[in-house]
Amino acid sequence: MAKAPQNAISPTREENFPEWYQQVVRAADLAENSEVRGCMVIKPWGYGVWELLQQQLDTIFKETGHKNAYFPLLIPVSYLEKEAAHVEGFATECAVVTHHRLELQDGKMVPSGTLTEPYVIRPTSETIIGAAFARWVHSYRDLPLLINQWANVMRWEMRPRLFLRTAEFLWQEGHTAHETAEEAMEETKRMHEVYERFLTDHLAVPVIAGEKTEAERFPGALNTFTVEAMVQDRKAIQAGTSHFLGQNFSKAAGIEFESREGKRELAWTTSWGVSTRLIGTLLMAHSDDDGFVLPPRVAPTQVVILPVTPSPSTKSPFSPPARNWRRD
Amino acid sequence: MAKAPQNAISPTREENFPEWYQQVVRAADLAENSEVRGCMVIKPWGYGVWELLQQQLDTIFKETGHKNAYFPLLIPVSYLEKEAAHVEGFATECAVVTHHRLELQDGKMVPSGTLTEPYVIRPTSETIIGAAFARWVHSYRDLPLLINQWANVMRWEMRPRLFLRTAEFLWQEGHTAHETAEEAMEETKRMHEVYERFLTDHLAVPVIAGEKTEAERFPGALNTFTVEAMVQDRKAIQAGTSHFLGQNFSKAAGIEFESREGKRELAWTTSWGVSTRLIGTLLMAHSDDDGFVLPPRVAPTQVVILPVTPSPSTKSPFSPPARNWRRD
Repeated sequence: MAKAPQNAISPTREENFPEWYQQVVRAADLAENSEVRGCMVIKPWGYGVWELLQQQLDTIFKETGHKNAYFPLLIPVSYLEKEAAHVEGFATECAVVTHHRLELQDGKMVPSGTLTEPYVIRPTSETIIGAAFARWVHSYRDLPLLINQWANVMRWEMRPRLFLRTAEFLWQEGHTAHETAEEAMEETKRMHEVYERFLTDHLAVPVIAGEKTEAERFPGALNTFTVEAMVQDRKAIQAGTSHFLGQNFSKAAGIEFESREGKRELAWTTSWGVSTRLIGTLLMAHSDDDGFVLPPRVAPTQVVILPVTPSPSTKSPFSPPARNWRRD
Repeated sequence: MAKAPQNAISPTREENFPEWYQQVVRAADLAENSEVRGCMVIKPWGYGVWELLQQQLDTIFKETGHKNAYFPLLIPVSYLEKEAAHVEGFATECAVVTHHRLELQDGKMVPSGTLTEPYVIRPTSETIIGAAFARWVHSYRDLPLLINQWANVMRWEMRPRLFLRTAEFLWQEGHTAHETAEEAMEETKRMHEVYERFLTDHLAVPVIAGEKTEAERFPGALNTFTVEAMVQDRKAIQAGTSHFLGQNFSKAAGIEFESREGKRELAWTTSWGVSTRLIGTLLMAHSDDDGFVLPPRVAPTQVVILPVTPSPSTKSPFSPPARNWRRD
């Protein structure tokens, strides 16, 4: 009697989608939980996917006029406080640095050297980058300022899930400042479109592009645009967001410039980001009950199958599809 | 009366080398101090240099068999304690995370949600990567394990100087595990040579390659090899180090494997790194009293001068050097 074919992954998507997801991450050796609560180890195969995502996005960001820079990991608590909605949005999930050394007490290392002002590990960088922009922007000639940062961020997460929701994650955060509301809104929408195109053309993931409701907006934003990826459990995953911040963060950080009319004005800012969550998203969109399926543009290892055909009679079934396997 | 030619940078190297250094960093718009003690903002021009360094080093690491991965930013204090020399070496300069949220008290945000065990922000990752290696290595067939991480690290720094000594800096840290002491020592020396070649051929910086004295060894290492860059104040800057760690970190983390003879053995490990300090180093090696001078391989903007020569009589002085400007 022939055995029924076995699926490599158990449970199947049908049986238990969340557990299937965890099993595929494990079977494909993409990442694992660490001993640090909510923080994952991204293993070489998973990191290889991230490197390809990063290279391709970075090229698009540069083509659209942005430059990379790097800002401090730590943010003074007083900076967060400057924007009311922002601090409220992130206060409950901040890792707080309170000491700057360890000291031996009763045979145990304990925190020592209390900081006069505590810092949080950046959950996002609007406030610290805003402070830099306030130093850099003096006149309308300094605008637009189009900056991107590749970095790790941390949001203390009570129900972590590999890639989808982790306390520490890797991401990029674009931050831009503009002369007018119109220009800032144009930028917000341009990057929203970049994400839509990237998900569709590079990750082959179908998305619904639209605007978030007021309740789901980024803390401190006037508008948040999102691409919601459609995955196999028929749920949507927020895959990339682009925020029109109005003058909220300019006011908080003092990003002022002399306008063409010689007046002091507040700049209009935006921010936009995608993260390692994209790896979980593309897994949920493409994989099956036999394991991880990767779209070719972000596959670290590319396989080419060369059929060896000994005679014309056995050649025909292979030839036409073999030609189709070549990608443009 | 003709004026004496003015140098663009004041003071000159001769007058005050450390102050000249700061002025060149400022004039070239490479980086600036932030409001976070000891943490710098790497501006687009400086970050552009780092991106080129990173791409070229990353290619060499991959050619020598290494793969990139990513490990948690936070390290449990108990991990550091497992290796006595290591914790002693880093205890006095650790940023310590003690809380996981902020709470409003008397109109001010204060740390709340005390962690049962504090974490330090990684000053280096031997201990947390060692814990992962202990999970990944079971048999001699899993060795060698050749991993690299691009990351930010933090060492609380009392006398910060842009690029050369900052509390937070960007770096790469290679971490490898091997079957035998000989193989681990071979790897240590291979990466030492990679750094020597990179400094010499890519950054055009002369180095003295050698071994550190016992007092200057990496905390926990048996041998530390270094490339010391020679810069214009006739001092040496430690530009890249490669450590033979023996079985110290394997013992601390439990990186054990079944040998070819079927015995349980401890792996032999190495680590090696270079950081954004390289940008300060190449500035000190190449720049002059008129400002920043960059070797061509790591210059984000390349300039080609095309002499337009109207007649044969004015053509001759240009032609031969113009040919030499082409790099292979």
